[in-house]
Amino acid sequence: MTRRFQGIYAALTTPFVEGEVSLDRLRENIRRYNDSGLAGYLVLGSTAESVSLSDEESASLVRTVREEASSGKMIIAGTARESTRLTIDFTRRMAHLGAQAALVRTPGFFRSQMTGEALQKHYAAVADASPIPILIYNIPQSTGVSIDSAVVADLSRHPNIAGIKDSSGHMAAVGEVVPRAAADFDFLLGAGSIVLPGLAMGAAGAILAVADAVPGLCVELYQDFVQGRLEAARRIQENIAPLNEAVVLVHGIAGLKYALDRLGYHGGLPRPPLLPLPEKGRAEIESILSGMGLVS
Amino acid sequence: MTRRFQGIYAALTTPFVEGEVSLDRLRENIRRYNDSGLAGYLVLGSTAESVSLSDEESASLVRTVREEASSGKMIIAGTARESTRLTIDFTRRMAHLGAQAALVRTPGFFRSQMTGEALQKHYAAVADASPIPILIYNIPQSTGVSIDSAVVADLSRHPNIAGIKDSSGHMAAVGEVVPRAAADFDFLLGAGSIVLPGLAMGAAGAILAVADAVPGLCVELYQDFVQGRLEAARRIQENIAPLNEAVVLVHGIAGLKYALDRLGYHGGLPRPPLLPLPEKGRAEIESILSGMGLVS
Amino acid sequence: MTRRFQGIYAALTTPFVEGEVSLDRLRENIRRYNDSGLAGYLVLGSTAESVSLSDEESASLVRTVREEASSGKMIIAGTARESTRLTIDFTRRMAHLGAQAALVRTPGFFRSQMTGEALQKHYAAVADASPIPILIYNIPQSTGVSIDSAVVADLSRHPNIAGIKDSSGHMAAVGEVVPRAAADFDFLLGAGSIVLPGLAMGAAGAILAVADAVPGLCVELYQDFVQGRLEAARRIQENIAPLNEAVVLVHGIAGLKYALDRLGYHGGLPRPPLLPLPEKGRAEIESILSGMGLVS
Amino acid sequence: MTRRFQGIYAALTTPFVEGEVSLDRLRENIRRYNDSGLAGYLVLGSTAESVSLSDEESASLVRTVREEASSGKMIIAGTARESTRLTIDFTRRMAHLGAQAALVRTPGFFRSQMTGEALQKHYAAVADASPIPILIYNIPQSTGVSIDSAVVADLSRHPNIAGIKDSSGHMAAVGEVVPRAAADFDFLLGAGSIVLPGLAMGAAGAILAVADAVPGLCVELYQDFVQGRLEAARRIQENIAPLNEAVVLVHGIAGLKYALDRLGYHGGLPRPPLLPLPEKGRAEIESILSGMGLVS
Repeated sequence: MTRRFQGIYAALTTPFVEGEVSLDRLRENIRRYNDSGLAGYLVLGSTAESVSLSDEESASLVRTVREEASSGKMIIAGTARESTRLTIDFTRRMAHLGAQAALVRTPGFFRSQMTGEALQKHYAAVADASPIPILIYNIPQSTGVSIDSAVVADLSRHPNIAGIKDSSGHMAAVGEVVPRAAADFDFLLGAGSIVLPGLAMGAAGAILAVADAVPGLCVELYQDFVQGRLEAARRIQENIAPLNEAVVLVHGIAGLKYALDRLGYHGGLPRPPLLPLPEKGRAEIESILSGMGLVS
Repeated sequence: MTRRFQGIYAALTTPFVEGEVSLDRLRENIRRYNDSGLAGYLVLGSTAESVSLSDEESASLVRTVREEASSGKMIIAGTARESTRLTIDFTRRMAHLGAQAALVRTPGFFRSQMTGEALQKHYAAVADASPIPILIYNIPQSTGVSIDSAVVADLSRHPNIAGIKDSSGHMAAVGEVVPRAAADFDFLLGAGSIVLPGLAMGAAGAILAVADAVPGLCVELYQDFVQGRLEAARRIQENIAPLNEAVVLVHGIAGLKYALDRLGYHGGLPRPPLLPLPEKGRAEIESILSGMGLVS
Repeated sequence: MTRRFQGIYAALTTPFVEGEVSLDRLRENIRRYNDSGLAGYLVLGSTAESVSLSDEESASLVRTVREEASSGKMIIAGTARESTRLTIDFTRRMAHLGAQAALVRTPGFFRSQMTGEALQKHYAAVADASPIPILIYNIPQSTGVSIDSAVVADLSRHPNIAGIKDSSGHMAAVGEVVPRAAADFDFLLGAGSIVLPGLAMGAAGAILAVADAVPGLCVELYQDFVQGRLEAARRIQENIAPLNEAVVLVHGIAGLKYALDRLGYHGGLPRPPLLPLPEKGRAEIESILSGMGLVS
Repeated sequence: MTRRFQGIYAALTTPFVEGEVSLDRLRENIRRYNDSGLAGYLVLGSTAESVSLSDEESASLVRTVREEASSGKMIIAGTARESTRLTIDFTRRMAHLGAQAALVRTPGFFRSQMTGEALQKHYAAVADASPIPILIYNIPQSTGVSIDSAVVADLSRHPNIAGIKDSSGHMAAVGEVVPRAAADFDFLLGAGSIVLPGLAMGAAGAILAVADAVPGLCVELYQDFVQGRLEAARRIQENIAPLNEAVVLVHGIAGLKYALDRLGYHGGLPRPPLLPLPEKGRAEIESILSGMGLVS
């Protein structure tokens, strides 16, 4: 099994200054991440507030990450739109700007019509037309659509579909997909609370929002697992779980950005309709970071 | 109570020919609707596959409907984007092209963060910036977000928020919103299966996909209710319910477009990822239309 | 259309004193309700905390309501168990004690297996074996199961299935069931927030928890509707909606029992695991009752 | 960490012959399981159709399993009722008949009222009154209630609450509960598709329906994990996953019982409202068992 995707990828945030995208701050974040052992970067993911960005802003982010990433870091861009046609257009454009792979979220607006057949045809058409490999992206908590394991296994045979990022938290999916999929199809976890069990089930790695805040711990967890130190990996998993829960599930992107600010990265505020983190949330994240020994 | 919105509005479909928007076919549909007693048209609604259209295509649709609509027909445009900023930009643009009101769907991608406060600020900001009145659009089955009646009542006091379209099918919402909202705030139903009971609870009218197929029956239902013929209204409601269910809930836009084709309008195929209506669905709709005496 | 069920039925609570069923207090409640214009009583409904009662306690309640109800009040007993066999046994027993009809909730524990066929066979078997007419009871918010309108229409032809109580709040169900069901099949609403629109769609009446607190208002709403006073009916519907929401949806049985205490009935505390109403809930209900002019 | 519960427990089915409980067939199943390496038996679990059994039938099952189980097999009985009071009564009765621990499902009927506080008080009261240790049982797919990890951690300090069975399939729960719970609190998995990842996260064992059909494979998976053979464990996990999915998620108890019949155990038919397995389901299970080399 030769893996194209393995290890830990950071799902980057988009820094704003007074509401405008700040490419400078993004560059500074990337420079720090370049030293971290991360396998690569996801730009324009959910965590990047990609749904709140114009096409021009999106393009500038991909270009900048491409320029700033150190050699060997894989650049993955989120390129989904609700229609097949718009997704193809945008994927081509991002590939042209330097994205090396495209993460394509399932369409969700017409969720009751998103049958296995509809999803199968959508992904096949996008993969046919894309100059770069496609990763399927399953995130039912945002889309209301959950792609069936049998459809994923089928799509894994497409020469230009390279893997899946699954953020559902539905662990059984790993065990359903990995043994049925093509040998060169990589399963990437999207939920930071279950990286270790997912690796134990055969996942190749993870694309994580929490890796923005603690890239080193995430990489160490992965290395511990790969080298057979299950107990050490479990301790890290338990250690990062409360932070992951706070910055992903409870407080969302405002929480993650606050944690980044406290850890020396550029976080800042999200774009409305996302609200700034309220005082109570700041105290919770402060307490978690302090308990981890990351702030004093 | 002076109502700005009342009666039946058609939520227009977007005709495609070989995958491209056909403004000619749209014009022909509008010309037929102009004679129907409809109060106006929603362009770029969910039914228009607006999420599958480029900004340029969207603009051309609003312009065309504006040109073709007969005098007195209200033009409402769906203008929602996921961020406040993009929604404002697009609303202004559509207003400039001739939309007289903007229907703004709740953001949904970051649904776990869409608190009452977040939605309140989002709508207030959009309404502040919009040159045309705003209608709130509640459609939890597509967005995963349901706006609270108390938030709606609060927003109803904003001078530039004129009403709500509620497609949730949650009838209690009418009774919660109408007595608490500002007197000039209009409640419009979005679910064709419950127009009569909604009117009985104080709704001002309805914006309906099924009105594309049977505008005359929908208008007659409304007139019967307004003139106190409750039994006659109920018979029409029962009559259109199976068609509504088939073309909205079960088969979606592909089903509606097929029904339009059978009734002499331009329906055509939806854009992928929506699939063409399968044979079984065609037979079901055929059977319903035949049962209603609309096709032979 | 001859209706066996019409008008407003109260879904009785079960009074406890120091944790034990108090038949005396139940008798006193019934005596007051006897003067109210209610069409009858539901004993052992959800509101009665029937799932928290032993079989012996259940029997004593049915016997007592039978004895105390004034002539002409219909006695309906909730008799559902999770299996067909246990439901038949219990239905027969309650019929023997004087119940005149049985309200049978859909089984819910094995919800993923509760197909239309499973529900159809369950109800047919119960109705075949029952000495009294059966009412189907659809309450997906408690059971996780929603019975399909087509299955209801089919079951309506069974000679011993007399109607349905639908507490789903799904208004479209009335319009789907009423025109398809047998002529002598009665649709009873279970959600106090949508009695008027349900009647407008052809429902025969309602079985309501909120009717325990304000039986007179509920009966008046029904009479206004029947006699064509739609506006008057709508004003009552809007008037009782906040109370209904507070005592059914928000605070549940503890809230309803508190309202009963304040209105001169016997409410008392629910059985654990239901908790007593907290101070905040008491203040909310106090404020609603005061706003309705029912307490000073 | 001394564990009271570890390894694999079978969630027994209840054999029926012509609709009546067959204690003889149950005895024969137990005799075969006695040789299997299983750590014990769950009687009256969900898989036992316990909600379809009378109290007397339930008692006879516990008594029989107690008599037939070989020495050293732990006997756990499902003892939940919807109220605290009925649960205490039934738990005491089953303890008296020989159950060594009680598995207590969260109440579910009044789900909107099942706050953390309500669940905390319910379990504390049951544990206070029970002569045998209590296991919390989280199965939101049947109850509609999901117990919060913080509440579980709190309850883990009760001297008579020994652990949790979690059938939610929500893997993150293991990582949330294990590090926060008392050291002698055991986490038991309830979902056969995720035993390996759960063990990797610190679970003590599993109570499984699929262990009725393939007890040897389940025990081997557990032993492989404990002895550090992660790859071997993963191969078994992948091997049993399709069977688990078919007999738990898709076809339910009728499917499991059919598989038992094919594997030489007594399966038989479930009680209505559960339907017999249709032909298509039989073929699917046949194909899975054949693929595993268990039938020819």
